[in-house]
Amino acid sequence: MTKNPSTEKTPPAEKQTTLAPTGHARNSANLKVAILGFGTVGASVAKILCELKPQGLEMTHIFNRDVARKRVSWIPHSVQWTEDFHDVLASGADVVVELAGGLDPAGEWVRKGLTAGKSVVTANKQLIAHHGVALEKLAAARGCQLLYGAAVAGGIPVIPGLQHGLAGDRLTQLLGILNGTCNFILSKMEQGAEFNTVLSEAQALGYAEANPTEDVAGYDARAKLVILMRLAMRADVHPEEVPCRSITDVSAIDFTYARDLDCTIRQISRGQLHEEGVVATVGPMLVPKSSPLAWSRGTENMVIASGQFGGDVVFSGHGAGGHPTAVAVVSDLLAIVHGSSQVEFPSRKTTVGGEFMVPHYVRFIVDDRPGIVSEIAGSLAEFGVNINAILQKPGHPKHNLPFVVTVEPCASSALKKALARIAKMDCLQESPLDLQILEN
Amino acid sequence: MTKNPSTEKTPPAEKQTTLAPTGHARNSANLKVAILGFGTVGASVAKILCELKPQGLEMTHIFNRDVARKRVSWIPHSVQWTEDFHDVLASGADVVVELAGGLDPAGEWVRKGLTAGKSVVTANKQLIAHHGVALEKLAAARGCQLLYGAAVAGGIPVIPGLQHGLAGDRLTQLLGILNGTCNFILSKMEQGAEFNTVLSEAQALGYAEANPTEDVAGYDARAKLVILMRLAMRADVHPEEVPCRSITDVSAIDFTYARDLDCTIRQISRGQLHEEGVVATVGPMLVPKSSPLAWSRGTENMVIASGQFGGDVVFSGHGAGGHPTAVAVVSDLLAIVHGSSQVEFPSRKTTVGGEFMVPHYVRFIVDDRPGIVSEIAGSLAEFGVNINAILQKPGHPKHNLPFVVTVEPCASSALKKALARIAKMDCLQESPLDLQILEN
Repeated sequence: MTKNPSTEKTPPAEKQTTLAPTGHARNSANLKVAILGFGTVGASVAKILCELKPQGLEMTHIFNRDVARKRVSWIPHSVQWTEDFHDVLASGADVVVELAGGLDPAGEWVRKGLTAGKSVVTANKQLIAHHGVALEKLAAARGCQLLYGAAVAGGIPVIPGLQHGLAGDRLTQLLGILNGTCNFILSKMEQGAEFNTVLSEAQALGYAEANPTEDVAGYDARAKLVILMRLAMRADVHPEEVPCRSITDVSAIDFTYARDLDCTIRQISRGQLHEEGVVATVGPMLVPKSSPLAWSRGTENMVIASGQFGGDVVFSGHGAGGHPTAVAVVSDLLAIVHGSSQVEFPSRKTTVGGEFMVPHYVRFIVDDRPGIVSEIAGSLAEFGVNINAILQKPGHPKHNLPFVVTVEPCASSALKKALARIAKMDCLQESPLDLQILEN
Repeated sequence: MTKNPSTEKTPPAEKQTTLAPTGHARNSANLKVAILGFGTVGASVAKILCELKPQGLEMTHIFNRDVARKRVSWIPHSVQWTEDFHDVLASGADVVVELAGGLDPAGEWVRKGLTAGKSVVTANKQLIAHHGVALEKLAAARGCQLLYGAAVAGGIPVIPGLQHGLAGDRLTQLLGILNGTCNFILSKMEQGAEFNTVLSEAQALGYAEANPTEDVAGYDARAKLVILMRLAMRADVHPEEVPCRSITDVSAIDFTYARDLDCTIRQISRGQLHEEGVVATVGPMLVPKSSPLAWSRGTENMVIASGQFGGDVVFSGHGAGGHPTAVAVVSDLLAIVHGSSQVEFPSRKTTVGGEFMVPHYVRFIVDDRPGIVSEIAGSLAEFGVNINAILQKPGHPKHNLPFVVTVEPCASSALKKALARIAKMDCLQESPLDLQILEN
């Protein structure tokens, strides 16, 4: 395991001198890189480092549990394979690339790395969403860097775009397709398939986990939205405060009705800056066909950042996968080599409050009888919710009849109260589904 | 003119200490900003500085010829208005924001600013395309920065995206809609109008200059493409080496035929990295309706960067206009405040050589007689160009008959030789128009 004893034994004091001082170009030795986690992304990072040989970067360690089964022949002999994190910590590695994911033990490794004065590049969205602010403080205190361009939308440079290119604007809204699995499922359902069929297909293709909850329930996208809101709106939001809605509630029939409304359905992560704070939500939403968000296909990711001065900027591309994510990691490593210090904008602890005042789509499935529409309309009116249109397509059995009501912009809470009342009607075959409609 | 004599008299030696050292965060005094050129963009930059009050930035000078007519009341009294560049040069300004445009005298001002140790932020595409490498060297030698995020695609953070987010990839192709005027004209022509009608409309709306040559001939887009190729492919290309084709050659009839081919027409700037060097071109091109490039509307800009590892990344948004361009300028100013040094990748002098091997669209207008298609097909075959399809729409007079031939991928030079032969045919009413067809 000790293939490079000379670097490994470098005392901490000397290590500091080989580390690039924050924001200073390193002209001397290469930046020594230790990769934590040799899965798909880790192997892709190693591949890029071996094939493109970016100037100033030298891979010195690969850390993984049961590392023996991970060994591949194309990695240079000079690289030390290890399953003991302390090998990395005690080594001369300047940067730890954390690709293990999850809060633990990855968080502990990142903290230990930073504490030892090693910069960290990570793709760990949950860690950065939950503990990014504290970890950035730790990095600053230790004079090293924490970069996470790969944590959101993989190969799409949204984070550098927000930090460097749009810093001069006041960003007021973020709209994102931040989960490739959900986009794959919903864009397939758009073509007529039901959720379970497409989920199986996605699992067979490796686009969805055996337990898809993290993706379909919106928790993955939520972590990414929280990171983007911190960078774009300087709002430090706790992920659990962002309401999520699962895409499992959406049926093929909803795509049929959406089409009649010149829309499709996508999992949208939305954050808005208001005078009083921020509003945010993640879940399936009706998206007008004319919006770039409706054009996303397969596992594609997309972010639309709207600024007070610059208007809308769209970023799209491959949001996940080993190679695109690895590009973001290597770009962060090069940023450290070139002394491009992270632009640090102070964020402040912000509560997700208020509501989106938006039009909604509500789908009912009823055992038909006279007077249903009148009752539903009555309940909506009672809570100040105005109906915009009623759609009912032919060809469905009377005892299991889907129909759709769209309502004018209203607070979700008012609609929810009305729907709670409506849900008590004996004719309802299942709970009504309400989705926000994205306005162009 | 001397409202701030204390800063103005600051001796150069002391100025250097208030200047942010390259790559170091400034924690002390504000970065003093002098704006050169108070036109649309200059006024927008001042507006953002006054309204958003970004931390660390202080506007100290506004320089313009005949400055008296430019004065506006919303600029703080502390700002010095001047029409003498030496006022700026001799002042305590840390950064010169050059928004005058053109090679001269703007280039001289930028050189003098850098030589005096002042960093420069510019939106000047022609200056950066022609002299960017030399100016970056000068900036590095003087320990200051030259940033030009606003020079390409205004408010869209393509330059930070390439420099910071995609640096870890090997970018092999750039496709861009880099000129909003041409995109406005062509997306209007798509709806049936002829060039001259739309040009007049664009001029009335302020989207096109009285003399539109710079835009329609492709020279504006070419300068931007050259800048992007330097950053993305490390290829230092002379703008004049990139072949340009004017969009004035395109007629309404071409959009009709393009539609039959499930395409539209856009001014596309294309650069490719080959083993032997680079290939580049700017001009109208057939774009499949399924490409994001076909979705661009109005003055929108778009860039698709394709990498060996990350695949395609799309950036789009408002490429021009005062406010979006000003966002890019202020973002660059903030990058200097936050000590984010420019990532410097060495570029090498590269000759634009070789050719695109792509399918082409060729439109003929003939005085019809028997045997024309056979003659044309014969000439094409003689130069090894294979016909893919022949399209002829009804409803045109026989003596002025447009028809279209699409050819399989071939070198443009071979096609041009064949067309030179064909151009001698007496039946031709005008020179044939050949356009590249973008493949998906």
